[in-house]
Amino acid sequence: MSERPAAVVLLSGGLDSATVLAMACGEGYSVHGLSFDYGQRHRFELESAAAVAAAQGVCQHVVVSLDLRAIGGSALTDEIEVPKDRSESEMSEGIPVTYVPARNTIFLSVALGWAETLGASDLFVGVNAVDYSGYPDCRPEFIESFTELANLATRAGVEGSMRFEVHAPLIAMTKSEIISKGLELGVDYSLTHSCYDPDEAGRSCGRCDSCRLRLKGFADAGLGDPATYQ
Amino acid sequence: MSERPAAVVLLSGGLDSATVLAMACGEGYSVHGLSFDYGQRHRFELESAAAVAAAQGVCQHVVVSLDLRAIGGSALTDEIEVPKDRSESEMSEGIPVTYVPARNTIFLSVALGWAETLGASDLFVGVNAVDYSGYPDCRPEFIESFTELANLATRAGVEGSMRFEVHAPLIAMTKSEIISKGLELGVDYSLTHSCYDPDEAGRSCGRCDSCRLRLKGFADAGLGDPATYQ
Repeated sequence: MSERPAAVVLLSGGLDSATVLAMACGEGYSVHGLSFDYGQRHRFELESAAAVAAAQGVCQHVVVSLDLRAIGGSALTDEIEVPKDRSESEMSEGIPVTYVPARNTIFLSVALGWAETLGASDLFVGVNAVDYSGYPDCRPEFIESFTELANLATRAGVEGSMRFEVHAPLIAMTKSEIISKGLELGVDYSLTHSCYDPDEAGRSCGRCDSCRLRLKGFADAGLGDPATYQ
Repeated sequence: MSERPAAVVLLSGGLDSATVLAMACGEGYSVHGLSFDYGQRHRFELESAAAVAAAQGVCQHVVVSLDLRAIGGSALTDEIEVPKDRSESEMSEGIPVTYVPARNTIFLSVALGWAETLGASDLFVGVNAVDYSGYPDCRPEFIESFTELANLATRAGVEGSMRFEVHAPLIAMTKSEIISKGLELGVDYSLTHSCYDPDEAGRSCGRCDSCRLRLKGFADAGLGDPATYQ
């Protein structure tokens, strides 16, 4: 019998969420991992999420199907081309086409519903406001606002039996700090997948914003990236 | 060419959302209707949503698949029995098992993503805080909190190109007021479906909270309910 508190951790299969998972496990939570099959361009993310969840011993990993293609609007779900070879200054100029409208709001909402069902008051999400791609739903004010909503939107929050907390432990960390933290906690980054536009064998392009931020993170940490590149 | 502003209206197939749709159309919006196939116990809701959308001339009706059964937790998606024959005082005592954890947060989040894609700053939802079943995500403070979140969570909100507004025009109306308003606007309530537990032919039970509130609403308005009961 586990006496550990339960937590829901959003798992994308990427480097950030793998690190957050390790942090939640390290803090003693019994982790329920949640991923989405949302019509993303490739399946490697979900395979990585499952591999990361298994490697870190979550008590459960659920993949919820949600067809965001029906509402379109992003290079990650639509037929819009993923931008490549953008410089750091280009990446910091506004919100890129890979932004999926309201994605983190949607994912956190489902995580909230599951957390309430499980009796888990803690949600973990790997958003990051430093080495990120300019997404509005990765900022501290978004997390604070969602937390307030969570406690108004749910039976548990309203009845006062639970006080939901959304943990975003990476929010103020650089990519290299995230990687260092993860390695300290034993994360196997070879299992993670960050590329927006991998080839058919699942090898990363090395050129999209996500690959470039990841590669820079490993370089800044003085390490090599164990991901496979084309 | 339509110059009308676009709006996203959540359509459940029920009486409330059909009325909200008529109100949005009446206010001159070009309406995009959004429904969810979320693992509800029966398909009649979605058939009604489609019929209502067609009857009122929406410019588009999309059904997004989202498997909430994967996260369980409600009599509307799980194998929990729907309560029957509850009195008004029983219905007003706390939140019933038909509460779907975080459902309106999830639905509004997807509506928000679609609205941003469409360039629609107005969202309409048929929540109601008077003749309702005690759901926390039907209250004015929930709607206000979600509106704040919407403007923090999105590119359009952050960049200031749009200011999202969540309209909940029924929130302070009684069921009979809603019905009177809808009839004034020409809503055909025979197309709507409210029952939580219909029989195989789609006939309403007349005994679940939703049926009882609906029947009382028609009675209070001095009218007969055109729905078919078992």
